[in-house]
Amino acid sequence: MKLARYDMNGTIGYGIVDGNSLRTLDACPFTDFNETGDTVRLEDVKLLAPTKPSKVLAVGLNYRSHLGDAAEPNNPEIFIKTPSCINDPEGEIVLPEGDDDVHAEGELVVIMKAKTQKATPEEAAENILGVTCGNDVSARTWQKNDLQWWRAKASDTFGPMGPVIATEVDYNDLQLETRINGDVVQSQTTADLIFPVPVIISFISQSMTLEAGDAIYTGTPGTTTALKAGDVVEVEIEGIGVLRNGVVA
Amino acid sequence: MKLARYDMNGTIGYGIVDGNSLRTLDACPFTDFNETGDTVRLEDVKLLAPTKPSKVLAVGLNYRSHLGDAAEPNNPEIFIKTPSCINDPEGEIVLPEGDDDVHAEGELVVIMKAKTQKATPEEAAENILGVTCGNDVSARTWQKNDLQWWRAKASDTFGPMGPVIATEVDYNDLQLETRINGDVVQSQTTADLIFPVPVIISFISQSMTLEAGDAIYTGTPGTTTALKAGDVVEVEIEGIGVLRNGVVA
Repeated sequence: MKLARYDMNGTIGYGIVDGNSLRTLDACPFTDFNETGDTVRLEDVKLLAPTKPSKVLAVGLNYRSHLGDAAEPNNPEIFIKTPSCINDPEGEIVLPEGDDDVHAEGELVVIMKAKTQKATPEEAAENILGVTCGNDVSARTWQKNDLQWWRAKASDTFGPMGPVIATEVDYNDLQLETRINGDVVQSQTTADLIFPVPVIISFISQSMTLEAGDAIYTGTPGTTTALKAGDVVEVEIEGIGVLRNGVVA
Repeated sequence: MKLARYDMNGTIGYGIVDGNSLRTLDACPFTDFNETGDTVRLEDVKLLAPTKPSKVLAVGLNYRSHLGDAAEPNNPEIFIKTPSCINDPEGEIVLPEGDDDVHAEGELVVIMKAKTQKATPEEAAENILGVTCGNDVSARTWQKNDLQWWRAKASDTFGPMGPVIATEVDYNDLQLETRINGDVVQSQTTADLIFPVPVIISFISQSMTLEAGDAIYTGTPGTTTALKAGDVVEVEIEGIGVLRNGVVA
């Protein structure tokens, strides 16, 4: 099942992708829901980030190929993004004033379907709704110079996510590819994550209660590339789809 | 005006403090609201954290008395807490497993009343609803050893806030006092903030859109004290009231 959130003439809804249509739902897909029996055509709606999370977390240093000179961490190295940075599919990434070294980071993003507190990895896996594509946009100068990552990782528009939540893929082995203007700049499988998805969720939940709809970016592979105005960034993950965002000054 | 959020037999409401009662409101106090004409007695309700923020931010190193060996920052050093860490007045602070050096940090907390984006300090000040007392509970071992502050600053129960939002105090000069088991451990005026409240809000809003109800912890003065199970922490700010929380293992 692929779940989408959409805006149709100002009305926000959820639906299940079915070919060129969405079968609409009577409630948001994090709780019990039923199909309404209606459909809308994908070409008549604007797809939105597929969740409105109460909380957005992310993992640093989670692929060996991205470690550079850093040591492999002993536990997942978590940081916090914000709901206000979440950006829709096709939404514009706005390059901020004050940092001209902003990079794309293609990532698998996990969406929770239930409250999760002090869970084992097995319990955490039970509470995952599905996965989507994400771009953990990162302003490197601020990331280096600020005391903590906040505007480096959570400036407005720095959290593109979508286009859909895939609920039945094996998130432990999906090919992820990032392209800038069609050129492949990152390509790796999520099988290479140092800390697999259920371990990340379990670890976070020892300290922080996760809620239905919360989103967790799982880390980026390899090296990353600076963005400039006019670029188009695509993050494609096998079994999910393509998250595409333009870049503006 | 002092605004409170409360739970009365499972129903959540907002009200204006009036002696030993609350004059109840027909909507949350961040948008237009009217009094319902009803009152409830304070002794019949449980006060809650006075806002349910979409986002919680905080400032580090914002009193000279707290800098220690650190240099005075060139701009506010922001970090991110989470809505899930927010704790009610009289709520218990739970000491986590894995870090036995958890400190109280008494702070003035600012609550926004309107969306705020790329605001000047003057515009930012216009969008402030009021201020409350906060405790930016901090797990020092994690703060020192993790790549980023997340569980150090935003573990469940690490964000006590309340008891009320005071809308008419001069937040630029309020005496703040933190007590542990009645002993004064921090005492300073907010006039000593390195970056005053409107400057903090303006600075954040250059990168992140603030929403009505969002909360910003403004920094802690002086040195801080480790907590142990059984302690009672009070943060009292002139013109607001006393935020009291017990500590459990």
